[in-house]
Amino acid sequence: MSSQPEPGAEPGSGRPDVLVHRLPSFALPFLALLCDHFTVLDPCTDSPDEPAHAFLARRAGLTRALVCVGPIPLPADTLRLLPSLRLVVATTTGVDKIDLRECRQRGIAVTNAGTTFAEDVADYAVALLLDVLRRMSTADRYVREGSWLKNGDHPLGFKLRGKQVGIVGLGNIGSHVAKRLQPFGCDIAYNSRSKKPSFPYRYHASVHDLAANSDVLILCCTLTEETRHVIDREVMTVLEDRGVIINVGRGGLIDEKELVQFLMRGELGGAGLDVFEDEPNMPKELLGLDNVVLSPHSAALTPESFEALGELTVSNLKAFFSNQPLSCLVQGE
Amino acid sequence: MSSQPEPGAEPGSGRPDVLVHRLPSFALPFLALLCDHFTVLDPCTDSPDEPAHAFLARRAGLTRALVCVGPIPLPADTLRLLPSLRLVVATTTGVDKIDLRECRQRGIAVTNAGTTFAEDVADYAVALLLDVLRRMSTADRYVREGSWLKNGDHPLGFKLRGKQVGIVGLGNIGSHVAKRLQPFGCDIAYNSRSKKPSFPYRYHASVHDLAANSDVLILCCTLTEETRHVIDREVMTVLEDRGVIINVGRGGLIDEKELVQFLMRGELGGAGLDVFEDEPNMPKELLGLDNVVLSPHSAALTPESFEALGELTVSNLKAFFSNQPLSCLVQGE
Repeated sequence: MSSQPEPGAEPGSGRPDVLVHRLPSFALPFLALLCDHFTVLDPCTDSPDEPAHAFLARRAGLTRALVCVGPIPLPADTLRLLPSLRLVVATTTGVDKIDLRECRQRGIAVTNAGTTFAEDVADYAVALLLDVLRRMSTADRYVREGSWLKNGDHPLGFKLRGKQVGIVGLGNIGSHVAKRLQPFGCDIAYNSRSKKPSFPYRYHASVHDLAANSDVLILCCTLTEETRHVIDREVMTVLEDRGVIINVGRGGLIDEKELVQFLMRGELGGAGLDVFEDEPNMPKELLGLDNVVLSPHSAALTPESFEALGELTVSNLKAFFSNQPLSCLVQGE
Repeated sequence: MSSQPEPGAEPGSGRPDVLVHRLPSFALPFLALLCDHFTVLDPCTDSPDEPAHAFLARRAGLTRALVCVGPIPLPADTLRLLPSLRLVVATTTGVDKIDLRECRQRGIAVTNAGTTFAEDVADYAVALLLDVLRRMSTADRYVREGSWLKNGDHPLGFKLRGKQVGIVGLGNIGSHVAKRLQPFGCDIAYNSRSKKPSFPYRYHASVHDLAANSDVLILCCTLTEETRHVIDREVMTVLEDRGVIINVGRGGLIDEKELVQFLMRGELGGAGLDVFEDEPNMPKELLGLDNVVLSPHSAALTPESFEALGELTVSNLKAFFSNQPLSCLVQGE
């Protein structure tokens, strides 16, 4: 009945330990798949009443691999409770909440979700843009509250054809966004660290310059020290009062306090926001604005992408325990 | 100071009469442009307290051209009050509310909005599909009512890639929808009166057959005697419980009572509806459903498309009064 021990199994156990690092509210959608192959340690379910650090100190001293679920912080303090750790498998594309410097110093490899979510996020960015420009979510509220019957026509939205769309970050997500927007007749330009000659779109060396030539900015880049608050007061000013900002990257890309002021004063046309600086909190003022579409960090989330993510995670953990090469490496050991 | 009379002007006046036929709640967005060229008769503003038929009988006996604004009925009874009428310029693409038989018998030419709205409607169809599949409008409501903070994650939507999308009516709008959905990785098929070999998509000779092979149906056809309730109980049954219906055509294409039942019983996955059988009324049950996106017949409406429509309308009226050929002729004299 006993199966062959997995390669890399801890002595005395059939399967290697894998620590799941998550917020209690954030379930791992492919937990069953993980349990098929590994002994899963999960402080949230194994010992919900014990402080996480106590559980880690007591139980995870020999743990060599950790799955970091969703956008939960993984700071140096937590990493120091895991002296044997050699691999962090992030289930997200962005790894800005993981202390990469500590990992580098400790020789801990870090992998991310790679391109698993790129198409879904790109779809969502286009959906947010359509929603803001054509006022779908406000129209749906308008109909549901009976205003169509009572007050007649809903205010008009705007046409997509001819809109100058500036994409900030022409990576996996940004390039999918561009490809999707072309048949709508949008005119695409972009900013990225360097010009990408394989794409036919106009390049701007600065976000400010891109914004000055755009009706719409779509944020698809990662959050780093350099990109934090890349959308600041100056960028919003040059976008002007018809300008629209779509954010499917990270909340920290935008100076959120300034954004709220610009939207409330009508100095920006609208925004479609899937991410916020302090999720799930957000500035209360946003909740009352009709020129904003709000979304609970859902761009990447479809059952189909979770399935692909489960396969990638298990395959990377198996590779690690068999000393095989890792996929989607953000930084090596 | 007096300008040259327009060709075709009524005797004694500088400009030919044009009758505006509209609902009081439905303003003509390019009225000023019309007034630049014609003497506009508008019962709603010229004589708001008089019954429309009395105004027409009294004032419009010599009127040769009528602009039919939005989806207002133009029945034989009304047409009979206008013995000199020779042209109906519809501002819509669909002319199902105009008595075309009476027009034909009387030798009244009818023009429509042609392709003016095709791209905006196609954009909106894609927006509705993205909204239903990725649950944007419900997500926006979820965030605004504080549920993200209180209850955590919003239910997942579905991926676009790989979805079998069936387009009912591959005309101006349908073909624009298809072109837009290709980069999302959707697999396109269609039904229309006849196969269109210039398009690379799979053809199904019946809507029932198309539905049986589709995850999504997008209704882009005109409403005629043949297409009324083309989406009936049988079609909804073969779409199955994950199936989605998007309607940017006319409400009468769907058996709305059946649709409500299917949606409430969870026997359809969802619907995105811009049009309804008895606008602006709709079945109350729809207002409470979360798998439905509701829109107040807005697909065609952007300031940019209204501007183009104004130009088309004036150009057709000028052509008529100069005995020049008409554009967008639905049926000739």
